[in-house]
Order: sequence, then C-alpha cells, then structure tokens
Amino acid sequence: MLHLVGLGLNTGDIPESSLKLCKKCDTYVDNYTSLVSDEYQEWLKKELGKDLHMIGRSSLEEEVGMLLEKAKSGDIAVLVAGDPLIATTHKIIFIEAKKKNVAIAVHHAASILSTLIGESGLDFYRFGSPCTIASWSQDYKPVSFYETIQRNVQGNLHTVVFLDYDNQKRSSMSITEAVRIMFEAEKHYKKWLVYDDMKVVVLHRMAFGDQKKLFLTIKEAAHLDLSPGPSALVYPAKITDIEKEVMQSMY
Amino acid sequence: MLHLVGLGLNTGDIPESSLKLCKKCDTYVDNYTSLVSDEYQEWLKKELGKDLHMIGRSSLEEEVGMLLEKAKSGDIAVLVAGDPLIATTHKIIFIEAKKKNVAIAVHHAASILSTLIGESGLDFYRFGSPCTIASWSQDYKPVSFYETIQRNVQGNLHTVVFLDYDNQKRSSMSITEAVRIMFEAEKHYKKWLVYDDMKVVVLHRMAFGDQKKLFLTIKEAAHLDLSPGPSALVYPAKITDIEKEVMQSMY
Repeated sequence: MLHLVGLGLNTGDIPESSLKLCKKCDTYVDNYTSLVSDEYQEWLKKELGKDLHMIGRSSLEEEVGMLLEKAKSGDIAVLVAGDPLIATTHKIIFIEAKKKNVAIAVHHAASILSTLIGESGLDFYRFGSPCTIASWSQDYKPVSFYETIQRNVQGNLHTVVFLDYDNQKRSSMSITEAVRIMFEAEKHYKKWLVYDDMKVVVLHRMAFGDQKKLFLTIKEAAHLDLSPGPSALVYPAKITDIEKEVMQSMY
Repeated sequence: MLHLVGLGLNTGDIPESSLKLCKKCDTYVDNYTSLVSDEYQEWLKKELGKDLHMIGRSSLEEEVGMLLEKAKSGDIAVLVAGDPLIATTHKIIFIEAKKKNVAIAVHHAASILSTLIGESGLDFYRFGSPCTIASWSQDYKPVSFYETIQRNVQGNLHTVVFLDYDNQKRSSMSITEAVRIMFEAEKHYKKWLVYDDMKVVVLHRMAFGDQKKLFLTIKEAAHLDLSPGPSALVYPAKITDIEKEVMQSMY
C-alpha cells in the first residue's frame, strides 16, 4: 500500500498516528513539490530511527512508477509538506495507482489553506476562491490571479493569495516581488484593485515560532524587509467590525 | 500562556509537537464546540499519562475567563477538534485574552476544510466560499446557504457544504436531512439548483478508516443509509475532464 502522509507546516507537525505508521513503512520524502526543511528531515530521522529516501532531484511524478511498484509488495510512505491532495501532483498519483491496481491511503495534516484563513482573523465563510501569484520569467508573465481577486471583490469576498514556490531558492516568492507583480497586473487590467493605500494582510512564516502577521498598505508591503521563509497574502474585501476586532486582537 | 491546540480529525491526529507540549500543560478538551470522541479522549489520557479537564456542559465561551486567569500563571492547553481558528468561538478567545493581556499560541492540525477539498478530487482553485446547512427548528428555518451555492455556480465554482453539528446527537446532520432542507431551499429560491438528477459529492467519516466518498444524484442521496459519523457535501460546478479522471481514481 502507498501512504500519502502530510507533515504539516513546521518541524514536528506530523500527526502522532502518522509517525507511528511511518515506523513500519519504507519512507520517502517529497522535497521537490514543496519544502521539507533540513531541520524537519533530521527530526524525522531521529524520531523514526532510520534514514529517509529523498525525492528531490527529479520530480515526484517521475518517481511514481517506482514507488507504486514497491507499494505492491510493501508499505511505502511518501511524506509531503502540509496536507496532501492539495497539490495536483499528489492527485496524479491516484490515477497512476488506479491503473496499476495499488491501494492508496491519505493521512491528513495541518494545511496552509486552513492556517492562512484562520490566522488572518477574517470570517471563514467570506473567503472566495484562492489564487497564486506565479513567478515571472522572460517569456511567461501571468497576471490572471487578478481576475480571481476581482471576482471575489465583486462578491465582497476575501482572497487567499498564495505565492509561487521557488524550488531553487527553496522558499516562496517574496512579498516585495509579489507586490511588484500585483502592480503590473493592475496596469494590465486597470480595475483599480491595486493602489498604494489599499490595505492587505501579510502572513509570514505561519506556524513557525517567529511568525509575523501584518495589516498594512500595499505601498508599505512593497518595501517590507522580511526574514527568509514562506509568505502569503490575503486581499481582503470590506472588513466587518467584528473581523476588525478579531484582527486587532490577533496581530 | 494559553495554547489553542488542534487535534485533527481522528484519534491520534494530534501533531507530535503538540502532544509533547500538552505534557507540560494543564490540559482542557473543548467538547462543546465540536466532537472529540470518547476513543480519542482515552487515547490522549494514555499518551499524556494524566487526566483531562472536559469543557462540555457549558460552552467554551463561558469558561474563557477561568482559562485565561489560569493562563496568567501557567501553561494551559485547550484541545479542539480539527484546526483551531476556524470556529468563531476560538477567535473570541483572542479578544478576551487581549483585554486581559494574556498571550495565546495556536498549534495547527489537520483541517476538515482542506480535507474535504482534497478528498473530493476537485480542483483546489475552483472552490468558491463554503456554506453550512443549519439545523431547522420550529421557529428557525434558514435557507440562505442556497445563495452561496448559487453565487458559486454562477462563477462556475464548487461549494463545500458543511452540515450543522448537533451537540445533542454528537454528530453532524445526516445527508438525508441535508437533502430534505436543500429541496425546501429550492422551493424558496426556485433557481433550479436542487433537482433529482443533479449529482453531488457525499463525503462521510473523512479521515476515519471506513471513510466513504460517493458521487451520486440528489435523489439517491436523499435515501442514503450511512453509518453514524460526520458527513459533508460538495456541490460541484461543471466538472472538468481532468477532475473527472481524478475522481474516478479516488472514489
């Protein structure tokens, strides 16, 4: 059987039940789709009392065939950052497993989506669909995330804005880079959603001991000097009085 | 300090780091806002090697003053089902804590929102805002959840439909009851969103060993005979080919 095991957000966030499970599995860490820190890897080795196989140089998708083959005769655990099944890659595994008639079990863990929504202090029911600001390259400069924000604003809904994961830098895009792209998107769409005085929520290093939550203008965000680590934004709709009160107590 | 500690979805889902933390805390279980099973409580007692204080008869909100008072001089852990901060109750604690100048730390865990989105097999980015079907009483028959589904359908977005938690039955509303209320809502709004042949996703006992995922017509859902346990629905927008393929491999 193949076990997709969520590691949660920070070192030690793996559920106790999953940790027990991994002790009896041949254990692989997916360090390609997202980041499992060196510290967390060391912690896992120590807790499990064994070495881990790393999936890092080639993508998890390339390794699926080998993993499924092994899962036919034994228990294989694939450890992934956050909660599994959010990444498309992890769903692709199901399709391949079905073809090969290999059973998969999913073991959930703390999720960045739920964490961002909760930590923002904004009302859970007022979040529209999320979007991601993708990294720009010479030939590819996507701005369609703006359309998601626009649709949500029209419905008076908040937007979780994920920032692209940069596998080479081994972190997410910085807030300053994200804001730069937001201004570029504004130039493209011109719907007056991104302007200096607009206030956004910055959520930095969530679930780490030194996490930072800021509610500040986009102009201020453009010059933020944050420590390395994963960041995300929330683009809020109209904030209600109760949301304001909660935010003031949580930030 | 007051620690809000998520327990995740099923027995043993507490993150390893949180389990360690609870060993040095005076530990309370919030069994009022949502359900922490007897089995999970017994498991926690055994793992922690101590008794747990239960918050069950009166609501967590009524107990906040006492908990914060204790948190001034020691480490207090409040254990909650799922991921903290989704429930409004847990945010209210922040407001009270701010007034009393007591620090709060949140320890995230597997979340039902992320689990439902992931397990549905539907595209993460295509979920609009969620809604809850509330229980009906003689005097209170809310149907406004229908408006959320309607807005999402108009934007071709999926909807996570939570079912009200029934503290007395210690479970969620049943799927059959939910479907009954959906048909009542249809009579009220008449937007042709709820009809016999419409297909919905039923997610039952997620993260439990015997979880069930079904993609069936509302008419079939109306007569579903499921074992006790938490259920939820996803009301899908137009399902894409890739989503279909993923669903076929995951259900």
